[in-house]
Amino acid sequence: MPRLVTPLLTVDVIIRLRDRDPAPLVLIERAHPPPGWALPGGFVDVGERVEAAAIREAREETCLDVRLVDLLGVYSDPDRDPRGHTVSIVYIADAEGEPRAADDARNIGLFLPEALPPLAFDHDLILADYRRYLETGARGPLPPH
Amino acid sequence: MPRLVTPLLTVDVIIRLRDRDPAPLVLIERAHPPPGWALPGGFVDVGERVEAAAIREAREETCLDVRLVDLLGVYSDPDRDPRGHTVSIVYIADAEGEPRAADDARNIGLFLPEALPPLAFDHDLILADYRRYLETGARGPLPPH
Repeated sequence: MPRLVTPLLTVDVIIRLRDRDPAPLVLIERAHPPPGWALPGGFVDVGERVEAAAIREAREETCLDVRLVDLLGVYSDPDRDPRGHTVSIVYIADAEGEPRAADDARNIGLFLPEALPPLAFDHDLILADYRRYLETGARGPLPPH
Repeated sequence: MPRLVTPLLTVDVIIRLRDRDPAPLVLIERAHPPPGWALPGGFVDVGERVEAAAIREAREETCLDVRLVDLLGVYSDPDRDPRGHTVSIVYIADAEGEPRAADDARNIGLFLPEALPPLAFDHDLILADYRRYLETGARGPLPPH
């Protein structure tokens, strides 16, 4: 294969804690730049399926074993990550139990979808799309966007 | 950002020619290895949104201007591409007019979804998922897969 360069591939996971009512979302406070609250996630390894990467990153950062429920969308605005062009595949997942911050997460926060803090990257947009998905079933970005 | 390596990112497009009844799918015969029929598609450029890459690749290979309709799924089996680990984001799109083979396409073929030729990569799997999507609305791979 020629020496190709494509955007870096990441996964992010919208985790709902289903053993609480109403079920909160699990966010992490990032230990590395850019700072702030964000969805758990990270880079996909070569040789790893994206679904496996989503489950691994959720476990590494929150100590939760998640079940992927649906694909919300693929987020690829070249300006979405200040570190460079990353494309994120965003999954919706369910989990139970007590999350604990680990790896790249400095802290864990539980938030209801309608009361979220300001978020890093384009995670505000992703979670706005998630709320629309809950209401209408429509998935994430398709042009015209 | 550290010197990260992630799988290469590609897009593939399931194009339905909506001005014919029944609407056929547009496949290309590949000009480069691996040989055979395949969905139009290719690598995402750094700085390019994935939706724009899908529209661009469809135009470059089939001379059609497509409208993206939905996201079928994200295909990431490390063995899906004999050239190395590529992850494909697969869109469903509509178009009208007369396709013409160009760029990486040696030839164009129109096929009904129920009468497809053998396909390169994992495009058989993708189009099996597409037929299931038409019947049930279910999208592409989620674990357990």
